[in-house]
Amino acid sequence: MADAGRPVAIIMGSQSDWATMQHAAETLDTLEVRWESRIVSAHRTPERLFSFAKGAREEGFKVVIAGAGGAAHLPGMTASLTPLPVFGVPVESKALSGMDSLLSIVQMPAGIPVGTLAIGKAGAVNAALLAASVLALSDPGLAGRLDAFRAAQTAKIAETPSNEGV
Amino acid sequence: MADAGRPVAIIMGSQSDWATMQHAAETLDTLEVRWESRIVSAHRTPERLFSFAKGAREEGFKVVIAGAGGAAHLPGMTASLTPLPVFGVPVESKALSGMDSLLSIVQMPAGIPVGTLAIGKAGAVNAALLAASVLALSDPGLAGRLDAFRAAQTAKIAETPSNEGV
Amino acid sequence: MADAGRPVAIIMGSQSDWATMQHAAETLDTLEVRWESRIVSAHRTPERLFSFAKGAREEGFKVVIAGAGGAAHLPGMTASLTPLPVFGVPVESKALSGMDSLLSIVQMPAGIPVGTLAIGKAGAVNAALLAASVLALSDPGLAGRLDAFRAAQTAKIAETPSNEGV
Amino acid sequence: MADAGRPVAIIMGSQSDWATMQHAAETLDTLEVRWESRIVSAHRTPERLFSFAKGAREEGFKVVIAGAGGAAHLPGMTASLTPLPVFGVPVESKALSGMDSLLSIVQMPAGIPVGTLAIGKAGAVNAALLAASVLALSDPGLAGRLDAFRAAQTAKIAETPSNEGV
Amino acid sequence: MADAGRPVAIIMGSQSDWATMQHAAETLDTLEVRWESRIVSAHRTPERLFSFAKGAREEGFKVVIAGAGGAAHLPGMTASLTPLPVFGVPVESKALSGMDSLLSIVQMPAGIPVGTLAIGKAGAVNAALLAASVLALSDPGLAGRLDAFRAAQTAKIAETPSNEGV
Amino acid sequence: MADAGRPVAIIMGSQSDWATMQHAAETLDTLEVRWESRIVSAHRTPERLFSFAKGAREEGFKVVIAGAGGAAHLPGMTASLTPLPVFGVPVESKALSGMDSLLSIVQMPAGIPVGTLAIGKAGAVNAALLAASVLALSDPGLAGRLDAFRAAQTAKIAETPSNEGV
Amino acid sequence: MADAGRPVAIIMGSQSDWATMQHAAETLDTLEVRWESRIVSAHRTPERLFSFAKGAREEGFKVVIAGAGGAAHLPGMTASLTPLPVFGVPVESKALSGMDSLLSIVQMPAGIPVGTLAIGKAGAVNAALLAASVLALSDPGLAGRLDAFRAAQTAKIAETPSNEGV
Amino acid sequence: MADAGRPVAIIMGSQSDWATMQHAAETLDTLEVRWESRIVSAHRTPERLFSFAKGAREEGFKVVIAGAGGAAHLPGMTASLTPLPVFGVPVESKALSGMDSLLSIVQMPAGIPVGTLAIGKAGAVNAALLAASVLALSDPGLAGRLDAFRAAQTAKIAETPSNEGV
Repeated sequence: MADAGRPVAIIMGSQSDWATMQHAAETLDTLEVRWESRIVSAHRTPERLFSFAKGAREEGFKVVIAGAGGAAHLPGMTASLTPLPVFGVPVESKALSGMDSLLSIVQMPAGIPVGTLAIGKAGAVNAALLAASVLALSDPGLAGRLDAFRAAQTAKIAETPSNEGV
Repeated sequence: MADAGRPVAIIMGSQSDWATMQHAAETLDTLEVRWESRIVSAHRTPERLFSFAKGAREEGFKVVIAGAGGAAHLPGMTASLTPLPVFGVPVESKALSGMDSLLSIVQMPAGIPVGTLAIGKAGAVNAALLAASVLALSDPGLAGRLDAFRAAQTAKIAETPSNEGV
Repeated sequence: MADAGRPVAIIMGSQSDWATMQHAAETLDTLEVRWESRIVSAHRTPERLFSFAKGAREEGFKVVIAGAGGAAHLPGMTASLTPLPVFGVPVESKALSGMDSLLSIVQMPAGIPVGTLAIGKAGAVNAALLAASVLALSDPGLAGRLDAFRAAQTAKIAETPSNEGV
Repeated sequence: MADAGRPVAIIMGSQSDWATMQHAAETLDTLEVRWESRIVSAHRTPERLFSFAKGAREEGFKVVIAGAGGAAHLPGMTASLTPLPVFGVPVESKALSGMDSLLSIVQMPAGIPVGTLAIGKAGAVNAALLAASVLALSDPGLAGRLDAFRAAQTAKIAETPSNEGV
Repeated sequence: MADAGRPVAIIMGSQSDWATMQHAAETLDTLEVRWESRIVSAHRTPERLFSFAKGAREEGFKVVIAGAGGAAHLPGMTASLTPLPVFGVPVESKALSGMDSLLSIVQMPAGIPVGTLAIGKAGAVNAALLAASVLALSDPGLAGRLDAFRAAQTAKIAETPSNEGV
Repeated sequence: MADAGRPVAIIMGSQSDWATMQHAAETLDTLEVRWESRIVSAHRTPERLFSFAKGAREEGFKVVIAGAGGAAHLPGMTASLTPLPVFGVPVESKALSGMDSLLSIVQMPAGIPVGTLAIGKAGAVNAALLAASVLALSDPGLAGRLDAFRAAQTAKIAETPSNEGV
Repeated sequence: MADAGRPVAIIMGSQSDWATMQHAAETLDTLEVRWESRIVSAHRTPERLFSFAKGAREEGFKVVIAGAGGAAHLPGMTASLTPLPVFGVPVESKALSGMDSLLSIVQMPAGIPVGTLAIGKAGAVNAALLAASVLALSDPGLAGRLDAFRAAQTAKIAETPSNEGV
Repeated sequence: MADAGRPVAIIMGSQSDWATMQHAAETLDTLEVRWESRIVSAHRTPERLFSFAKGAREEGFKVVIAGAGGAAHLPGMTASLTPLPVFGVPVESKALSGMDSLLSIVQMPAGIPVGTLAIGKAGAVNAALLAASVLALSDPGLAGRLDAFRAAQTAKIAETPSNEGV
């Protein structure tokens, strides 16, 4: 079923987070995983967060990727309202470089998990890859595309020649 | 009107936070400010958080004091759902000593404020004093009690004798 | 009475903090809350700090917003000298990005509270919103304007369309 | 198929990490998810890490939970060698309280994701819950047990009475 | 003149800081430098701080040692009110281990200096030694005692024998 | 005697530190305190450090200001070799913004004090002011110039007009 | 034997790390120590890492310099697979300025050492110097060149003239 | 030659550091590498540091292991005075848990390297192993013992059985 509908929801706290989260979308595109993105602010649109998160499973989503910065409550609050796996991306914040975002997302209390990725672009790419690896558990086609993606990534580095000094 | 009903709500994420938050309650008792405390977990009881926060003004509360630790989302989510002033108390967490709690509470995005106090017991006491100072703006009796409280606090230190060496 | 005079004082340690603190002023303007700002350096004009803070209630202020950076003593010292609610804004510092400002403001000892907001511009905006929420407790007109402000803020995000991939 | 074999591998860098990681095992037991744990040190048994990680999919595992402390390389290196989802648990370290463990696990470069949980026991419990939520995507029975687990967790808090002061 | 009266004032924010600051007093005793200690809380007794700091030079003090913890404003505020050299001792705080104390004391803005020592007991001892080195500039007797103190300190370590292995 | 010779030595680890330390020199110039600056690298010219520090008192210096960045050992090593008061200025480092410089300078063990100022330019200015306040203890002329400097600094801020909103 | 073949391997996680690691190469060139560099990503080319590290001694390398950023596993994993001395260079990362790189490299568990240098360019230069000092133990010619290098470095600073003020 | 005399010097800032540094000594004993330990305080016995470090090569040492805490200058200053490889062990400090020790040791400027190990006991053990790996480059017997040590370490972990749940 993972290949029916749009299995991945990408949500973020504000339009400005798209600069980071688009890397999740692009990675999913590369893997031919369908996604839908929405601006859902935990703080400015809490009702929207509630209705999205509570209905996410019924909407057919399998995995939620949530990006937010600063006192980043979106991933954790989403996880509190849906049984789906939620992966959090700490967006780099201005003053504290995303350390606040990271701690706000990763330090969840026992009972409500958020699988947290790295701060910024790398985290967004990896949230997509992690979502794909989850979906690939029941989607052999995607599993194959993911294997190919990683093989290509390995090959790209393996091609670099060595240098020598003196 | 601040002296009618119970103007201060004290909420916290788990029963274990009471060890910290009771200091807010005791300080309010000293100032004869009525309060009510509830366990409201942003993560484990999000519906309860929603109904509490959305109804807090109608219940007659004037100020909300919210304590939480780790990825502390309770103060911010409460603030997103009520127009009342919300004061946040970072509870000291085990691994990171409350630095995660502090950043999760204080680094709110523009639009939804949480007035944040110090980590732990001092923060709980001060949340109560800050709530009282807000209520005292329209409650001359409380203003007087608060002035007396602070005068006593000053006097207590002023009594300490000086020491001399050699 | 909150609508008489200028209920909000905005003070800051140096002229350069205005770049941050003007966002508090603008937010108050939007909410039609009158304010007055002054440069009051805890370190370079301690007498001015004393006379301001000790006289703030008598001047008719209801709330003080204080912004400062580095070893930021202005909010805490003001709070030690006035019974009014004091909200502190940590200004982003050069070397330590405002972490020094934040800790200097928020880690007040039990007895003298400062409600602390986020580092930088977001904190300045939110100090104004928090001040407004306090004043709105006894000013129904302001309460209405604040509700409208937040509704507009919510609506602005709610209008953003979702994107879809692949 | 998720209910066949042992879908979850729990690996950790040393025997002493079991004090933390057993909470993952116990949580999986509660949810009737079968698991197997192994001591696999990235640094002291790199060959064992390689053979485990490269063979994990073939062994029938669906998800890997990896706990490690300090310069915690186990989760990331495992993720580099298997296409399965890997969830990392930062074990609290002696000097730096797990901040080193956290950064070593979460700050993975783009290309190889580790879904990271909180430092210590809460992270171990949550790694199990996150693994279960992944497996539940294709296991309705587990999905039901997970829903029940969370409902019980919510109910337990909802039962706490409120207190009142003065 | 440095040997007339009590040249060193030791002030601290609360009685509990004496556990740390007594090490400054004991060190001064060893060096036969006369001192006087007072509890002066920047936050709870701001008037006392003002009158002490403004009158310190007239009282005959030459150097002020100020210890405080958390949002430690005492050393900086004292420095803002006296032309005397002020040396600050960050007292170890409960949650943040004195990092908040340190930053609150050392990050003073240009114009008002506080010479800051290490967190805790070592800082208290060293504040005394630094004060003594200042007074010794115009007190040859003290200069001699200070030289002797350091020579003894060096000799004590130089006596330790070396160990050998295998 | 403080007005004879050059009472203040300004030393720094590398030529690039002059961008920071020149603010100490300029401040001393303003106060008409004579100074001499030298490049003395603890790590690259340890012998020079030894001979400078051991001879500083005999050269007629009264106070040493030492600036350094990163693993900043210059202030502490100088203090270990001279009985003169040493004031340390943490130069802002590239990666860690001077936090490494600050901790390397301020966290001296009991026995050898370094009076530490703020990171960067503010610290350099303040090291000069602190040195001047030390010299002023036995130099009434300098005491007067320092009082005038601070009065001017206060007056400059006191002139700023207040703003008003709405 | 250290002068035969290429005694130093410089490895790094990605091509972008060369901007940092080239300073190691240049320093080795200056000292006439032969080197070879390779891109070896612990995460994207784990097999390459294994074969390189396991074969490094047999290839004739004496010392390995490994640079990596973020969750920097390359130095530690290399050390786990070779008996050769491994020196790690934390590459400055975007969000956390290399603090994550540093902790991921230096906080190795007992049993597998990585000699860690400073973050960034200074660390790369110093890794080369440390490697040279190791090789110099059995290569008198190199020992002489290293002594000359350090003497020149000292002389360069010693030439800087002192400045004087007023 | 590495087996002649005592190739490893273990130095530390104070007697109390022996609790940490003895683990280096014990590890060297296990590997049959001869060592000598001395208390050499950079701050309290700078002359002793100078004479030790300048004479270390002539004394026949091949490698220096230096442990220190807080503003830990011993490793870096030793490295500035000897061409031998210096490995630094950050001793866990009271207030800041060794983060100050770590940064003071590792953030050396370009030109003078210190190979830094982990904070505390693990770092002490690893300094010994790193020293042994350096000496083993020209001592086949030691190389064999080191290989055996690591093989035993690997075997010890490999023996741990796996557990299974449910």
